[in-house]
Amino acid sequence: MEEKKVLEELRRYRERDLKYEEGRILGSMCTKPHPISRKVLEMFLETNLGDPGLFPGTKGLEEEVIKMIGEMLHNRNPFGYIISGGTEANITALRVVKKMARERGKREVNILIPESAHFSFEKAREMMDLKYEKIPLDKRYTMDVKYLRDYIEDKGKDVDGIVAIAGSTELGTVDNIPEISKVAREYNIYIHVDGAFGGFVIPFLEERYRLEGYNYNFDFSLDNVFSITVDPHKMGLAPIPAGGILFRDISFKRYLEVEAPYLTETSQATLVGTRPGFGVAATWAIMKLLGPEGYREIVSQCMENTYYLVRRMKEYSFESVIDPVLNIVAIRDENPLDTSLKLRKMGWYLSTCRCVEALRVVMMPHITREHIDKFIEALARCKKR
Amino acid sequence: MEEKKVLEELRRYRERDLKYEEGRILGSMCTKPHPISRKVLEMFLETNLGDPGLFPGTKGLEEEVIKMIGEMLHNRNPFGYIISGGTEANITALRVVKKMARERGKREVNILIPESAHFSFEKAREMMDLKYEKIPLDKRYTMDVKYLRDYIEDKGKDVDGIVAIAGSTELGTVDNIPEISKVAREYNIYIHVDGAFGGFVIPFLEERYRLEGYNYNFDFSLDNVFSITVDPHKMGLAPIPAGGILFRDISFKRYLEVEAPYLTETSQATLVGTRPGFGVAATWAIMKLLGPEGYREIVSQCMENTYYLVRRMKEYSFESVIDPVLNIVAIRDENPLDTSLKLRKMGWYLSTCRCVEALRVVMMPHITREHIDKFIEALARCKKR
Repeated sequence: MEEKKVLEELRRYRERDLKYEEGRILGSMCTKPHPISRKVLEMFLETNLGDPGLFPGTKGLEEEVIKMIGEMLHNRNPFGYIISGGTEANITALRVVKKMARERGKREVNILIPESAHFSFEKAREMMDLKYEKIPLDKRYTMDVKYLRDYIEDKGKDVDGIVAIAGSTELGTVDNIPEISKVAREYNIYIHVDGAFGGFVIPFLEERYRLEGYNYNFDFSLDNVFSITVDPHKMGLAPIPAGGILFRDISFKRYLEVEAPYLTETSQATLVGTRPGFGVAATWAIMKLLGPEGYREIVSQCMENTYYLVRRMKEYSFESVIDPVLNIVAIRDENPLDTSLKLRKMGWYLSTCRCVEALRVVMMPHITREHIDKFIEALARCKKR
Repeated sequence: MEEKKVLEELRRYRERDLKYEEGRILGSMCTKPHPISRKVLEMFLETNLGDPGLFPGTKGLEEEVIKMIGEMLHNRNPFGYIISGGTEANITALRVVKKMARERGKREVNILIPESAHFSFEKAREMMDLKYEKIPLDKRYTMDVKYLRDYIEDKGKDVDGIVAIAGSTELGTVDNIPEISKVAREYNIYIHVDGAFGGFVIPFLEERYRLEGYNYNFDFSLDNVFSITVDPHKMGLAPIPAGGILFRDISFKRYLEVEAPYLTETSQATLVGTRPGFGVAATWAIMKLLGPEGYREIVSQCMENTYYLVRRMKEYSFESVIDPVLNIVAIRDENPLDTSLKLRKMGWYLSTCRCVEALRVVMMPHITREHIDKFIEALARCKKR
């Protein structure tokens, strides 16, 4: 087939996709990447961080990105990688937890994980035969720390790791990680924080958007937080694939290393081998370009739109399940699956919660007030209010 | 930082990387992506196949790509995905083998795997607690089928899977998969073929490049070959990330599915969640543009260059470990690590074998005869011949 025809046909396929700027993607944690991404891609398309000796420049950028994200998370000496996404990041952290448990002579690896955890943890559990104890949620839909403490006091020595969430997929809640950290320190338990979504939100969340009585701290400043998932390709505005896994320091590397005889380096610690460098370079570019101030503006805009949606919902007597903690709104609905399918037929794509009967809207930067107005009218029509 | 400055700095980093067109990358299985990739990227940068309901056009392309690759591998009804690369693909296949074994009530999952297997299988083993029996190599450096058969005759019921290689990382050898298939059928054992490299070479390898007495067949035409790893981002000329995993049919999907409550679909079978669509679209474009004839030309050119290198080696009394099976040359060397480091100082990047004392050159499409001439002179200087 000729190039011209190939590109024409591709365009036809592409036209069938939704576009972020149309504002109809309301349930995704991804968004339109920052415009500089295209220029960066042009430069870095060929790079392969699976063999970093061939691409020392790009590898240097990855080290700087990890350092920058580390600083954002109060860690000046992090170790980590920019990888395919949150799933690989969470699996990577649990690979470490498993290996550490094995070195302590344990066969069974016991992990405490909140009911609100993302389904990537289910993939990890199944592959690695981890044993999960699901910790119920309290009335704020965050991990019940009292339950957690009681459980650990009961079986302290048997617990190898705790997963805590900073920005849950369903409701955007942040577990009380400062309190979890206290228990973990007392019993010497590893904490992995899944901040895939919240990692690029919470550090830039101004005081006026923080709920009273809510402790948003989730990062390496807390004892026993040894790894954090934080995805540039979610609220960091980077193109896919740019997920992030950070460990407290380089000492965790050895649990991940596998001998890599054919490369310019002798071992490989990432799960995926060959991996593109452009997500790394784009993340570097976007972080340098925006700076903390730029991210603060984006997060503030998303929070304002979040509140705007909640206000508009009230006009139509729709109820938000919780006061939004981050830029996610859960709309109470007696039959969310049915409603979401009806909305989809009307051209609005959002998804549903599991932990509560609700629709969810992730207020990503591509969603404007005009989109919100149109959506709320569609929802009202759909529910005949 | 200003955009102009950001791009300038990025350019400085990028200059430190090696470039494929300089011909000094001799040990990588990746290459300069086909030029159409940039135009495709421009169009598909924003797509996310982790949530295919939002991107039905791009998802349609993935289905077509899997069908096209399936046809190339003699399978008109394949099931599969374009994913991050060979590591994810191999892990995905072994997830299925493990799940099937568990459903048969087995706790321990026993897999026969040749000594020549890529280190991604080591990651899979460690994560999934698989039990490997390493099958030694015969004098052709392929899996010793007699050993394999004897082993299975001994412990038939205990073997849950066989991994076979079509294009080994070190020497480019192809296991005798037709013979392995016979044993596997007899004992009803799952075969996974790692054709990450060979998958886009063997189907386009003209008769005149095929070694006598060597059976190159490796695909779904053979009984019990239930999955194949085949990477467009290696000899398929696609940009990273574009790895491929194909299963014989859709019936294997259920072993991989995990409930995915927040997406437009209700389950997810890939290991990685969020994943870019542009590797898929680029693979589609390149396959349509080149067609089998285009790939045949590329493979032929790589084979001619492979033979050319072997001829030039002989002039300097360097010995090839085997007659090249595919476009990989192993150069016998009494101290390959030392030689490779010396060569690296001279600006030539190649790697070493484990199974034999040798340097290895992967004759990718970016390597020209001029590069080969310069390299062989450098090698001669390095070894003072």
